[in-house]
Amino acid sequence: MNTFGRLFRIHIFGESHGPAVGITLDGCPPGISLSVADFEKDIQRRKSGARGTTPRIEEDIPNIISGVFEGKTSGAPICILFENNNAISKEYSQVLEQPRPGHADFVAAKKYSGFADYRGGGHFSGRLTLALVAAGVVAKKIVSTIGIEASLIEAGGESAYDEAIEKTLEEKDSIGGVIECKASPMPVALGEPFFDSLESLLSHLIFSIPAVKGIEFGSGFQSARMKGSQHNDAIIKNDGTTATNHAGGINGGLSNGNPLVFRVAIKPTSSIGIPQDSINLKSSEVQPQEIKGRHDACIALRVPPIIEAATAIVLADLYLIHGK
Amino acid sequence: MNTFGRLFRIHIFGESHGPAVGITLDGCPPGISLSVADFEKDIQRRKSGARGTTPRIEEDIPNIISGVFEGKTSGAPICILFENNNAISKEYSQVLEQPRPGHADFVAAKKYSGFADYRGGGHFSGRLTLALVAAGVVAKKIVSTIGIEASLIEAGGESAYDEAIEKTLEEKDSIGGVIECKASPMPVALGEPFFDSLESLLSHLIFSIPAVKGIEFGSGFQSARMKGSQHNDAIIKNDGTTATNHAGGINGGLSNGNPLVFRVAIKPTSSIGIPQDSINLKSSEVQPQEIKGRHDACIALRVPPIIEAATAIVLADLYLIHGK
Amino acid sequence: MNTFGRLFRIHIFGESHGPAVGITLDGCPPGISLSVADFEKDIQRRKSGARGTTPRIEEDIPNIISGVFEGKTSGAPICILFENNNAISKEYSQVLEQPRPGHADFVAAKKYSGFADYRGGGHFSGRLTLALVAAGVVAKKIVSTIGIEASLIEAGGESAYDEAIEKTLEEKDSIGGVIECKASPMPVALGEPFFDSLESLLSHLIFSIPAVKGIEFGSGFQSARMKGSQHNDAIIKNDGTTATNHAGGINGGLSNGNPLVFRVAIKPTSSIGIPQDSINLKSSEVQPQEIKGRHDACIALRVPPIIEAATAIVLADLYLIHGK
Amino acid sequence: MNTFGRLFRIHIFGESHGPAVGITLDGCPPGISLSVADFEKDIQRRKSGARGTTPRIEEDIPNIISGVFEGKTSGAPICILFENNNAISKEYSQVLEQPRPGHADFVAAKKYSGFADYRGGGHFSGRLTLALVAAGVVAKKIVSTIGIEASLIEAGGESAYDEAIEKTLEEKDSIGGVIECKASPMPVALGEPFFDSLESLLSHLIFSIPAVKGIEFGSGFQSARMKGSQHNDAIIKNDGTTATNHAGGINGGLSNGNPLVFRVAIKPTSSIGIPQDSINLKSSEVQPQEIKGRHDACIALRVPPIIEAATAIVLADLYLIHGK
Repeated sequence: MNTFGRLFRIHIFGESHGPAVGITLDGCPPGISLSVADFEKDIQRRKSGARGTTPRIEEDIPNIISGVFEGKTSGAPICILFENNNAISKEYSQVLEQPRPGHADFVAAKKYSGFADYRGGGHFSGRLTLALVAAGVVAKKIVSTIGIEASLIEAGGESAYDEAIEKTLEEKDSIGGVIECKASPMPVALGEPFFDSLESLLSHLIFSIPAVKGIEFGSGFQSARMKGSQHNDAIIKNDGTTATNHAGGINGGLSNGNPLVFRVAIKPTSSIGIPQDSINLKSSEVQPQEIKGRHDACIALRVPPIIEAATAIVLADLYLIHGK
Repeated sequence: MNTFGRLFRIHIFGESHGPAVGITLDGCPPGISLSVADFEKDIQRRKSGARGTTPRIEEDIPNIISGVFEGKTSGAPICILFENNNAISKEYSQVLEQPRPGHADFVAAKKYSGFADYRGGGHFSGRLTLALVAAGVVAKKIVSTIGIEASLIEAGGESAYDEAIEKTLEEKDSIGGVIECKASPMPVALGEPFFDSLESLLSHLIFSIPAVKGIEFGSGFQSARMKGSQHNDAIIKNDGTTATNHAGGINGGLSNGNPLVFRVAIKPTSSIGIPQDSINLKSSEVQPQEIKGRHDACIALRVPPIIEAATAIVLADLYLIHGK
Repeated sequence: MNTFGRLFRIHIFGESHGPAVGITLDGCPPGISLSVADFEKDIQRRKSGARGTTPRIEEDIPNIISGVFEGKTSGAPICILFENNNAISKEYSQVLEQPRPGHADFVAAKKYSGFADYRGGGHFSGRLTLALVAAGVVAKKIVSTIGIEASLIEAGGESAYDEAIEKTLEEKDSIGGVIECKASPMPVALGEPFFDSLESLLSHLIFSIPAVKGIEFGSGFQSARMKGSQHNDAIIKNDGTTATNHAGGINGGLSNGNPLVFRVAIKPTSSIGIPQDSINLKSSEVQPQEIKGRHDACIALRVPPIIEAATAIVLADLYLIHGK
Repeated sequence: MNTFGRLFRIHIFGESHGPAVGITLDGCPPGISLSVADFEKDIQRRKSGARGTTPRIEEDIPNIISGVFEGKTSGAPICILFENNNAISKEYSQVLEQPRPGHADFVAAKKYSGFADYRGGGHFSGRLTLALVAAGVVAKKIVSTIGIEASLIEAGGESAYDEAIEKTLEEKDSIGGVIECKASPMPVALGEPFFDSLESLLSHLIFSIPAVKGIEFGSGFQSARMKGSQHNDAIIKNDGTTATNHAGGINGGLSNGNPLVFRVAIKPTSSIGIPQDSINLKSSEVQPQEIKGRHDACIALRVPPIIEAATAIVLADLYLIHGK
């Protein structure tokens, strides 16, 4: 469903080409300063416009509908809207007849019996991550003592990737990437066993971000190839500091006080300028399909602030449950 | 918290060395045949005893306390208990003073202000996965048309791994592994956007399994190194069948009808027979520590039925929400 | 929190004197016709303007932000906003120093450490029931086979109450009332034991409506004075029809197919034109207080459509869980 | 469903004539002393045996399966079982063919497609309130500063009711009653607007108790007949103390620091010794039915500790959310 969290709860809504996308934050503590300016930096980081990102540029100014009084959170739910002003919808109608490979067109039509808003991916659109970023801005204020930083460490298989992006643009193709996120200093014991481990909640929220296909904590998949004597992090201080951090800052599903470290795999954007085969549902024939919408050659470039937001949202909720 | 699911809900309880571990399943449809014999196969697969697994052997006979009437589920919550009969607790008291590397000892003591049951990992123990397997047996009956199969595809970095296990036993060390899970035939459109994508729910539950450090769907981390033109799965039939399955059977967070495929990274068991450094919280000195308990050289050997169970639990819940 | 429901979930937000109040409906089935005109009747019934109601008149035009595509629900969350255009806030600042008797001023200030929006009751305002009514309009469409009707059966202790209202207006006082709600034909077996009985869910939602102080089902408090031989409703048909309906259409927490009947007690509006004693928190002295805002002499007049909405919301959720 | 609460969560299971009834408490803070002896007093108060109560007498000894370590809560879920040893089931099979008036027989069979355990009411039985009382014992320890006291203030319409009970026993009939519950001293601001008002949560849980047909807070239904100038409670101290308590200690859905006061209507036991008409589902004919099971002439006698338990459970949850 469109809700996430236990005490700090977010409710998302909106479609790519509807009037607006938005989010409501319930359970935010009162007394936190919040203004439109606070959102600017992370929204700017998520925005398109750089090489390799879509030319659809929106103003993305947050409209705070509720929950803020005299410049501070009031304790009531905070609803934030972002208008959609730059949507071009006429290009999308073909997806009903011929669903695009890699997109939600086919499954959305099935799930909602043909009533889903198919324009620009509708409610499945990456545009909704704008609302996530906005929620993250508030969440970061709740866990303001924790520094959260995500960055693209690899795109198209390269760690220096400007050239790869240029080549991709030329080829009208797309490439994926890997994002690493670190958070520190971490309080000890965030996470709620048995089912709400820190990894469980982070992965839950992060896999709701379109294009995410994998997540690993600490040494992650490399752990599976290590020996216990290599992987175990020796505890060397009374505060739980470890000599190494193969665990990525988590034991038993709880933060152990060392830096939280995880990596996220982002697939290449599904929309590309190269014609691709797909079934025509009316003729039942596979036909080449050209996609004309405006898209990202490397969506991964825009994902780091979204990963940070998701991380902040999870940490804020766990902090309110346990840490306060 | 110790609850997972929306309509098919599981509630887990118990500690490794307490009287029992157990689980309550709420929301199971009425009229499903259920007997003690149904649990035998998966419980046997999870059991220790094989080379590379712990010598602690429990009978693991499910005691159905409620929810089954005249051999069929009644619609009321199903509570299943497993007694702990073979626990040896005296070996564990040292962990209060000197927490074990890679274990939850340190974080559990912090989280529960020193009141946690530390014996055998207490509520953090892998023994609780027995209850998950039991829930999975019921869940598999709810989604009985879907075949769910998980297997260890790699241990200690090797795809043929008998030798690696023998060597690990000799060295008193431990190794990790990678498990692959496939489910098919899949109904179309399981998953509840925006936050309860199929990947979100699977990863949530699977990261609650001790020792899991990573998960990837379809081509996963490899996706991040592919081009869109390679990664996109061409839709070639009206039922959504794709030519390839890089997406692992999921688009937009919804099952697309193709086989669900994902892989899980299992770290090496933290308990090993080799002395390791850890802080002594009383003396504040780092000291070598020897762990005497009975443990698994390759816990990953026992995890496939647990991954299957988690998969079945998620699919059953989503099926009750959408598919019925 | 500001969320209610399991499959049909509502999220409410907004303050009396903020930019807008609103609600998001998650889990609404796709394909239901929905337009602004659908809301008119129930919103009109709730509106003020009649004798005994406040002179604050708002246009109350629903602004559908999401979840409706080409005139039909799309399956995505439906966000509906109502602008606040006719709020006069300057009259309210005194409540910080001298909280009004019967209002949430004192408790809101305590709960939110002085950061709550106090204007017009803020998030505690009866204005939020407008959003509930809007949700009810959608819910009624989900359970369109059930007729739901609530009416004021008593005000100021009188069943014909025009005169009582006139007298109250003259005295600048206020009066309460009793509302009866009936729903039929009811499907059998709505309700989810053990904790989500039909009475539990209805009372939960109805007690969130400001001014509600009591609820009783069927014979209610009168039941407590009856004998079992009088109270038991003889089942006289195979479809569950009973000869009498002392149970109000519910057995064991489940609808039994007979008409659902319950009554709700509404207290007199707290705001009255007569000066009342209250503590001045600065001087710590009890002083007479005059309230100048615009208010209802008999708020109960406006509550029937709100009770209907709450009933429809609960029935819609239970219907989606069980009935479909 | 069978779960209630947000941070202090209870999960109930079991049937009247199954092996056991039980409850799991999740979210209980660690370090609270808990032993079998703690349960004795409230369980004894709920027990049958007095004049007017059923002759089915169970030992009702709590079996603590998990969550308590060395005499104190450990922070892990607490599972408590009560064996059913004195159930006589053969008397119940007739209810499948001829459902009893006032009971859940008819609706349970419909809801669970004929698979429900019908013996002694199965999962709908009042026996499950034993588990609620056990949860209440733990909850009372969490909110140990609040005194919670419920008592029967009226039975069969009489405030002195010994005679009424004797007469009822003679007539093989049953009578209902009214229970009043008071809690004080109350912390200020328990309750979570908009939907989780203190009244909402209390009524939700209390209406899950079998036989409850009404609830009113403070002056309740009498409020509806009062004027605002009479009903409003003048605030006379800085701590929120009011001169009167018509509000029952609640404003805006939040506790206001004054005593919490509410009353609950209990219907007469449905099972009586007098033959009553009911449909025979096979012959479709209405026939007189004699019920032979062992039952309570005045179940209300046993309900006060259950109401106290429900109150404590709600207050404990709200205290953990807000008060700590």
